[in-house]
Amino acid sequence: MSEPSDRVRLRRLPDRGKYDLDDALRLMDEVGVATVAYARDDDVRQTPTFVWRHGDALFWHGSAASEAIRDQATGVACCVSAYVVDGLVLARSGMHSSVNYRSAICYGTASKIGRNDDKIAALEVFMERIAPGRWRELRPPTVPELRAVTVMRMTVEECSVKVNADFPADPEEDLTWPVWVGVVPVRMTIGTPVDAPDLLPGTAQPEYLRHIRLGGSTPG
Amino acid sequence: MSEPSDRVRLRRLPDRGKYDLDDALRLMDEVGVATVAYARDDDVRQTPTFVWRHGDALFWHGSAASEAIRDQATGVACCVSAYVVDGLVLARSGMHSSVNYRSAICYGTASKIGRNDDKIAALEVFMERIAPGRWRELRPPTVPELRAVTVMRMTVEECSVKVNADFPADPEEDLTWPVWVGVVPVRMTIGTPVDAPDLLPGTAQPEYLRHIRLGGSTPG
Repeated sequence: MSEPSDRVRLRRLPDRGKYDLDDALRLMDEVGVATVAYARDDDVRQTPTFVWRHGDALFWHGSAASEAIRDQATGVACCVSAYVVDGLVLARSGMHSSVNYRSAICYGTASKIGRNDDKIAALEVFMERIAPGRWRELRPPTVPELRAVTVMRMTVEECSVKVNADFPADPEEDLTWPVWVGVVPVRMTIGTPVDAPDLLPGTAQPEYLRHIRLGGSTPG
Repeated sequence: MSEPSDRVRLRRLPDRGKYDLDDALRLMDEVGVATVAYARDDDVRQTPTFVWRHGDALFWHGSAASEAIRDQATGVACCVSAYVVDGLVLARSGMHSSVNYRSAICYGTASKIGRNDDKIAALEVFMERIAPGRWRELRPPTVPELRAVTVMRMTVEECSVKVNADFPADPEEDLTWPVWVGVVPVRMTIGTPVDAPDLLPGTAQPEYLRHIRLGGSTPG
């Protein structure tokens, strides 16, 4: 059985890549959910999962028992992609129709975080990213819980960022074609929080619920 | 989203997977954008792109000149994943916090569509999926345009569907922990269409713009 890490060639960030890296990391801060792909034996696998950034590394987590997490053992080359769709760009022909989006694809080698305090620190960054201020309100993790969760860390070694943000660009000869053209905006919306049925009576909805961000949503 | 659980159903097709396949295909109809992963030499690559369904096959397209599309030549094993996030499930501990989502991962072998009329038929399905009724209004594709676009087709050979849709399930001993718990809904919203600057004067916004669906959005 071949080691996936042996089979996957990694590329270094080119000199001009720093700018792309900043953009990629900024996008990862916005999206929340990304897709982690990796090789397993002769297969390509991928998992949509929450990915968060700290410094120039990406993190994700899962049950230590999950197949995907077991496959992503230390030293496995991974590819993490994420996107935000901002709008549909409807032109006068299919060929010139497009989509406004921001996407990042990051390559690197993933490894498991070993120490419990490093795991806790990473999980705190995750929760603070989603709901700032909530981590310190939670019942803290126990040692068995920490054992049951695996947190993966991947330093970004190469990335590519693509952005499209424009109106349709039909060629001159199509401009009189009689069809509506324009952009249909698409965005993620955070709805009104719903109390759990077992919420302790008198527990108010915290202020940070109004600042939750995900998938390029704006705080509402 | 990489949680292991009895909610996870992985079925090899066609042995016993028809039900899961239907779920996967239904989700693909909802999402619009998915992620296509494949092996390239010794690399794992992935591309977020529009994926649409017709029958039990998935389709995506791209410039014939694009690296990803060239890599996905006929006979390449691909993995297509897509997800919709429906809500954040905020429990009394990080461990029991979760996300409500629907995801599908489909495996198969991709091939390029060769004939122009098959390409046109596939592209029509794509456009009709996004904006029903628009295809026949568009300036039709030319032969050079069809040459410049590659349409990939993948019959789903294996798939896995995961769904989580619940309130937090804190263990008994956590129920008195004094923190807000509940679900924060997340959804895709289609905004008000914006006319292109070069729109012919007097061109009205068509009715079908009100029925555009993407990423699990509901017609609005």
